[in-house]
Amino acid sequence: MTAPLRLGIAGLGTVGVGVVKIIRQKANLLSLRTGRPVVITAVSARSKDKDRGVNLSDYAWEDDPVALATRDDVDVFVELMGGSDGPAKAATEAAIAAGKDVVTANKAMLAIHGQALAESAETAGKVIRFEAAVAGGIPVVKSLTEGLAGNDITRVMGVMNGTCNYILTRMENAGLPYDEVFAEADALGYLEADPNLDVGGIDAGHKLSLLASIAYGTKVAFDAVELEGIGRITIEDIHQAADMGYRIKLLGVAQMTGRGLEQRMTPCLVPADSPLGQLEGGTNMVVLEGDNVGQIVLRGAGAGEGPTASAVMSDVIEIARGTRLTTFGQPAATLEEARPAQSATPAPYYLRMELTDKPGALAKVAAVLGEAGVSIDRMRQYSHESDNAPVLIVTHKCTRQSLDAALEGLGGTGVVATAPVAIRIETV
Amino acid sequence: MTAPLRLGIAGLGTVGVGVVKIIRQKANLLSLRTGRPVVITAVSARSKDKDRGVNLSDYAWEDDPVALATRDDVDVFVELMGGSDGPAKAATEAAIAAGKDVVTANKAMLAIHGQALAESAETAGKVIRFEAAVAGGIPVVKSLTEGLAGNDITRVMGVMNGTCNYILTRMENAGLPYDEVFAEADALGYLEADPNLDVGGIDAGHKLSLLASIAYGTKVAFDAVELEGIGRITIEDIHQAADMGYRIKLLGVAQMTGRGLEQRMTPCLVPADSPLGQLEGGTNMVVLEGDNVGQIVLRGAGAGEGPTASAVMSDVIEIARGTRLTTFGQPAATLEEARPAQSATPAPYYLRMELTDKPGALAKVAAVLGEAGVSIDRMRQYSHESDNAPVLIVTHKCTRQSLDAALEGLGGTGVVATAPVAIRIETV
Repeated sequence: MTAPLRLGIAGLGTVGVGVVKIIRQKANLLSLRTGRPVVITAVSARSKDKDRGVNLSDYAWEDDPVALATRDDVDVFVELMGGSDGPAKAATEAAIAAGKDVVTANKAMLAIHGQALAESAETAGKVIRFEAAVAGGIPVVKSLTEGLAGNDITRVMGVMNGTCNYILTRMENAGLPYDEVFAEADALGYLEADPNLDVGGIDAGHKLSLLASIAYGTKVAFDAVELEGIGRITIEDIHQAADMGYRIKLLGVAQMTGRGLEQRMTPCLVPADSPLGQLEGGTNMVVLEGDNVGQIVLRGAGAGEGPTASAVMSDVIEIARGTRLTTFGQPAATLEEARPAQSATPAPYYLRMELTDKPGALAKVAAVLGEAGVSIDRMRQYSHESDNAPVLIVTHKCTRQSLDAALEGLGGTGVVATAPVAIRIETV
Repeated sequence: MTAPLRLGIAGLGTVGVGVVKIIRQKANLLSLRTGRPVVITAVSARSKDKDRGVNLSDYAWEDDPVALATRDDVDVFVELMGGSDGPAKAATEAAIAAGKDVVTANKAMLAIHGQALAESAETAGKVIRFEAAVAGGIPVVKSLTEGLAGNDITRVMGVMNGTCNYILTRMENAGLPYDEVFAEADALGYLEADPNLDVGGIDAGHKLSLLASIAYGTKVAFDAVELEGIGRITIEDIHQAADMGYRIKLLGVAQMTGRGLEQRMTPCLVPADSPLGQLEGGTNMVVLEGDNVGQIVLRGAGAGEGPTASAVMSDVIEIARGTRLTTFGQPAATLEEARPAQSATPAPYYLRMELTDKPGALAKVAAVLGEAGVSIDRMRQYSHESDNAPVLIVTHKCTRQSLDAALEGLGGTGVVATAPVAIRIETV
């Protein structure tokens, strides 16, 4: 039996408490599976006195996470505080400087400081592992970094924010508008303190940027992620997309194109009968595509105490077993600058608009689209009692530039009553 | 840059050639991702002169896989010959004795000799990795051994034989009987030389037994897998299961029960709208359930050159990176004997029978079921022109023993025209 692996855990929210529980309840199993005891020596959180429903009296307490991270009796600093900067970053840097390995669930910190942290960890011969930062309990970092390492990755897709998927599927199933379901989700405690992290796509964008770095050997480039939240999605769009055989998801897509790395976290239409289209509620799904393996679909809980703690434990166990991996699948010093290419890949688009009910209105729209190089695959005009006629168009594949030109042109026709809604259709 | 990792590859069928191609085409990528060159030094196959569409002239040739496995210039023996015994086993044993690590796609060999091989490898300080042996390109061995290592696994399920799933979905979609689709699959080259390995569930049973060992810390117990193939599934059952909202899959299930380890690879009904129910054609799906992580679903290609070679490469890369894992997730010497418990878990069952069209026939059936402790959830009697009335019953959960008692009792009623068909319904 080798020496115990000693953890210092900073952050005792849901996930931190989940990790403590697993380590207390599964000591035998962990020791069997890793060949050594896995123990907690010290913990840190904002409030020492809060009852967290778990016995912490066996562990040293540190008010200061930096002090925790640098303790002599800590081998692995487990960072579960969150926040891209502040104490999480300070303590992570201190841990690396003090020769500790790091396990973190902090997507924001890695999306912004991942390259610098990885470089300093690797220079120090230490590892940073972050399975819990992406898609909760789904072993997606491991699958991509290790399972698919013999592939050139051709596309990474994912629904990686359970709150957004909950809101979108709840809108559809209950027929409720966005604002109402947003309020529900808030009351249920599903939203981050800053809800824009969820509904603005930022949290999911962080995750996508980490996967893109592993997939394409590029430095994490969160700033280059094309971000759009779900706030403008209406119940009409959801219903009418369904009518055309699609569902709307906040979908992340990362792919390497001839023009550079395309990273998008935006609402997309996906076929209703595809695995992504069928995803309900808070569940996450990641689709990994490689030149040899084809398409791998991974599905599971994207958040919550058990699933996220399970992912943290996977990293802890990896370190306990003696596995030493680079942060992003190859040495950080060899990662290339990502050349961002926004919306480089042509796609079909869903367009919804209201036309003034005049003869020739539809012909004008078709002409403008045609001039911009946007051809129509399917079109539906709905019966209406108001002055304006609701019209849905599914285009053939076109570039975002052509689409934008078409949308601009539509404004000048005098027949479009409201600004058209345009949503990309992702082929899955 | 560390020393190259030198592979000796035995078996140059589809998968072996796929591995050679990846190593030739992705030398830079593999070196970036592992920190060292990954090279082939020698190969072995039955026929040296066969044109395999790939240049083998850079590699030493060995007619004898044992000679290949023990070469001084080989670090990792890559066993892609197949077969539970014979040359594959001899060469694997020789490789371990000669101090080589082993990567294999050979589910049959590991299902039968896995415990002995793992023990000798671990005693020698060598590893045996077998991602490609289970579910092709899906990183399921890695997900279970590493990603979910912080969980007590509560259930492992899987559709892990693409040929069977192809046959079942083709029967449904084309409305063709089993024999006809079997002949089609044979003509398409989808079947093993001994087709019973596929349609008899043996190949999938091998895979299930390997996952069960990892999941439950038990010695591989393929002999204890309750095996039933798809040969008795009729197009009537497929259609009538569909009518009740189910699809029929050759489904593997492993779970630890109070009575011991239950392992089944049998046709089951699963809800048509579940991920397992929606699986089409040759695709594989594995469902892993853990006490913390909940349910993780993994889906991808279960066979073929690219996917299987991708899985082999994942193991090669793992070794090249210096990762050293035990074969089944904990030291082989600590694995416990599996206490087999066949059909220990109660389940609902689908029953199809034809009743003689006499008054009181259905009442007799219901009485026999009730006496055996089998209660009826749903029942349908179909209109008919023949003398016998087709009847479908979905039972509430019952034990297999109760069901068998009921089936025996039905024979004595004098109202059942043909032996009833009974298929388990798995809750997913």
